[in-house]
Amino acid sequence: MTSPSSSAQFDYAPLLPAGLPAPAARWTGLAKYSFVGGNNDPDGVPVEYLADAVNAVLRREGKALATYNLAHGPQGYLPLREFLVKKLKRDAGMACTPDDIMIVSGSLQGLDLVNHTLLARGDTVLIEKESYQGSINRLQRLGVNMIGIPLDDGGMRIDAVANALAELKQKGITPKYIYTIPTVQNPTATIMPEQRRTELLKLSEQHGVPIFEDDCYADLTWNGKRPPALYAMSKTSNVIHLGSFSKSIAPALRVGFLVAPWAMMSRMLALKTDAGSGALEQMVLAEFCAPHFETHVPRLTKGLRAKLDTLMESLNEQFGTSAEFEEPAGGIFLWVKLPDNVDTMKLYQAALASGVAINPGVEWSVDKPYSGSRLRLCFASPSHDQIREGVAVLAEVCRKEFGVPARSANVEKRAKG
Amino acid sequence: MTSPSSSAQFDYAPLLPAGLPAPAARWTGLAKYSFVGGNNDPDGVPVEYLADAVNAVLRREGKALATYNLAHGPQGYLPLREFLVKKLKRDAGMACTPDDIMIVSGSLQGLDLVNHTLLARGDTVLIEKESYQGSINRLQRLGVNMIGIPLDDGGMRIDAVANALAELKQKGITPKYIYTIPTVQNPTATIMPEQRRTELLKLSEQHGVPIFEDDCYADLTWNGKRPPALYAMSKTSNVIHLGSFSKSIAPALRVGFLVAPWAMMSRMLALKTDAGSGALEQMVLAEFCAPHFETHVPRLTKGLRAKLDTLMESLNEQFGTSAEFEEPAGGIFLWVKLPDNVDTMKLYQAALASGVAINPGVEWSVDKPYSGSRLRLCFASPSHDQIREGVAVLAEVCRKEFGVPARSANVEKRAKG
Repeated sequence: MTSPSSSAQFDYAPLLPAGLPAPAARWTGLAKYSFVGGNNDPDGVPVEYLADAVNAVLRREGKALATYNLAHGPQGYLPLREFLVKKLKRDAGMACTPDDIMIVSGSLQGLDLVNHTLLARGDTVLIEKESYQGSINRLQRLGVNMIGIPLDDGGMRIDAVANALAELKQKGITPKYIYTIPTVQNPTATIMPEQRRTELLKLSEQHGVPIFEDDCYADLTWNGKRPPALYAMSKTSNVIHLGSFSKSIAPALRVGFLVAPWAMMSRMLALKTDAGSGALEQMVLAEFCAPHFETHVPRLTKGLRAKLDTLMESLNEQFGTSAEFEEPAGGIFLWVKLPDNVDTMKLYQAALASGVAINPGVEWSVDKPYSGSRLRLCFASPSHDQIREGVAVLAEVCRKEFGVPARSANVEKRAKG
Repeated sequence: MTSPSSSAQFDYAPLLPAGLPAPAARWTGLAKYSFVGGNNDPDGVPVEYLADAVNAVLRREGKALATYNLAHGPQGYLPLREFLVKKLKRDAGMACTPDDIMIVSGSLQGLDLVNHTLLARGDTVLIEKESYQGSINRLQRLGVNMIGIPLDDGGMRIDAVANALAELKQKGITPKYIYTIPTVQNPTATIMPEQRRTELLKLSEQHGVPIFEDDCYADLTWNGKRPPALYAMSKTSNVIHLGSFSKSIAPALRVGFLVAPWAMMSRMLALKTDAGSGALEQMVLAEFCAPHFETHVPRLTKGLRAKLDTLMESLNEQFGTSAEFEEPAGGIFLWVKLPDNVDTMKLYQAALASGVAINPGVEWSVDKPYSGSRLRLCFASPSHDQIREGVAVLAEVCRKEFGVPARSANVEKRAKG
C-alpha cells in the first residue's frame, strides 16, 4: 500500500454537523483485570449445546435464511417468541402472545426504540438515581431531563416517585415514562418487593405515565426466585417490558426482546428500519432454550455466585472497612462505596494505568456528588484468580492515590470486631 | 388471559412526539408471488457448509461469546475483517487493513452511521435519480434535500453531477456526499465504467464532497468481473465504502461492512452504541467465507441468471412490447417500463389483491413523474414456476386495470419482428 502525502487527504471536518459525540479512540484491548462491561463467565457459555442446536436448526431450516426475517415478519423468529411466551409466564407471571413480542438486536436497540417512540428534546423522565450507564447516556444525548429517584434496599423509593410526580404535575409537566430496573437493579442489585410494584403501577395509572421496565438481569437471582414482572401485574397495559439473552446466555449474541401493547408496538415497528435482527442468533437461541434454558440458568448462577463470594472476600481482605457494600440478590456486579475522599473517576484512571478496569460511580448515576466515591465491579468475566489479583492491585492503587485503605485495615477491623 | 375493559386501557397517544412515522400494520405474511425485497434464492444458501462452519467455530471459540464483541473490539470479529481485506483486494482492487473496516448489522446500519455522522436537517446530497428505497426513505426522514442525478446505461451521468455541483456552488451550498451504487445499480442494474469513476472521483475532490459508495450488489455480476471500487481508485480517502453479505450469502444474516478513513471511522464508532453486531453471524461468515466464498458466488449467480432468463421470457410472453427493460449486468432485480398510462402504484395495489407483490417505481426514485409507470421486479426468491405464474397474474391485473398489455401483444410483436 502506498500512502499519499497527508496534505492530499480529503478533509471531512468541515462536513460534520454540530452536536456529534467525541470521536472514538482506537481499540486497545481489554484490561488485564477487567471489572467492567456486562461480560459473562466464559465457562458459563453452553458451547456444546449451542453447537448442537445451531447444527440442527440450520440443517432443518437453513434455506429460510434467503428471506429477510426468515419470512416470520419484523417481530422476529416465531419459535423464539413462542419460547418467550412460555418462559415469561413461568418465570415472571406474564400473560402475552407472540404478537406482543418484538425480538431486537440486544436490549440497547430496545432502549432506542422506546426512546424514539416517546421522547423529544426537552422531555422529562423519572429514573432510578443510580442506573444503567447505557440508559443514562442515551437520555443525555437526547436532551431529556432526568429526575433521579433515590433507591433503598427495595429499589426505587415509591414515596420519592409520588413526590416527583406531584411536583411535576404542579409545573404542568407529564413525564414520558418511569424507567426502572426492578429485578436485580443495575448497579445496586436490589429487587423491588411485590407490594412496592403494586404502588408504582397505581402511581403510573393515576398520572398517565407509563412504566418502562428493564428486566435484563432478572434471570440471575441466586435462588431462582423473583417477584412477578410489573408487566405481569399491570391491568391497563401501562408497562413496556424489555428483556435480553445477553446475561442468561451470552452478550456477544445480540438478542433482546420488547413486550408491549400494540399502541406502542406498532410505533416501534415503524422505527425498526434495520430489516430485522440477526436470524441465526434467534434460531440458535430458540433451538437451545426450549429444551435447556431451565437447567442452564441455575448452573450459570451457581458459578456467578461463587465469583461474587471471591470478590466480596477479596474486598474484605484488601479494603477492610474502607469498602462498603450490600450483598447482591443476583446479577454480575457489586456496587461499592469507598471513603468520601476517594474520587472514583480519578481512581478509574489510575487503576487503568495499572491494568485494572472499573466503572466509576458517576457514570452510573444522575447524582454526581452521591456517586463520586462509589464504583461498580463486574465479577462474571474475570477468573477467581484474576478477581483476587485485580482487587489487590486496585487496593494498592487506591492506597497510593488516596491513602486508603490503610495497609492493615482488615487486620484492624478484625481486631476491633 | 382476562382482558380488562378497553376503557381501562392506558392511552399512549398523548405521549407521542410530533413527526413519528405512521404506525406499522400487522404482519400478514409474504405475497404468494413475491417480486419484492432483497430476498435471495433459498437453493443458493450453502446450508451444509454453513452448518459445518458454525459447528467448527463454536466448538473452537464459543466461550468468547461471553465477552461483548468477542473481545475483538467494536469494529468486529477480526477473522471476518481479515477475510474482507483479502476479498476486497482480489475482487474490488481495494487496499485496506482490518483497522479500516467496521462490521455493521447489515448495510442499513451502515447507511444510518454515515448519515448520522454527516447529515443535519436541511443538508443536501446528490443521489442517483433512481435509487434504493431504503436510502431514499432515510434521507426523507432526515429532512435532507436530494438532488437526483439522471442515469444512463453507464450509471450516474457525470455531466449531470458536474452541473449539479456547479449550480450548488453558485448557491453557496456544499452537498454532504454523492451517494452512488456504481456496481449493479439498484434498481437499474447498470455498472459504471472505470473512466466515469475516474471523472467522479475528480469532481468529488474538486468540490470537497465525499463519495458514499454503496457496493451491496457488486458480487453478483454474471461474468464475475467488475471495475475497481471507487474506494480503490481514490488517492485522497474521499470515498466511504459500504458492503454486505446479504446478497452474496443470505439476507437474514444481518452482516454488512463499512470501509472508511479514520476521520470518518472514529465518528461512526462513536455513534455505534449497540454494543457490537451479532458475533455468531460474524463467526460463521468468517469460517465459511475464507475457504468457500470464491466458489460459492459463481454457483449462486448461475442460479440467479437462470431465474432472470425465466423472468425476461415471461415478461416477453405476457407483456410483449408493453414491457421494456435492459438486460441487467447482474443482481437480483429487473427495472421495467410499462406504457405511460400505467400507474404502477395503482398496479401495485391491484396486484397485491391478486397475490402478486411488486415494487412500484415511485418508491425507488426521486423523480415521481419519470418513475410512475416503472416497476422493480426481484427474481431471486420466487421459483421458476412462481415467476411464470406471477408474471401471468400481473399481466392479467394490468390488462384489467389499464387495458395493457393487449391480449395478443406478444403475438403482434412476433408478427412484426
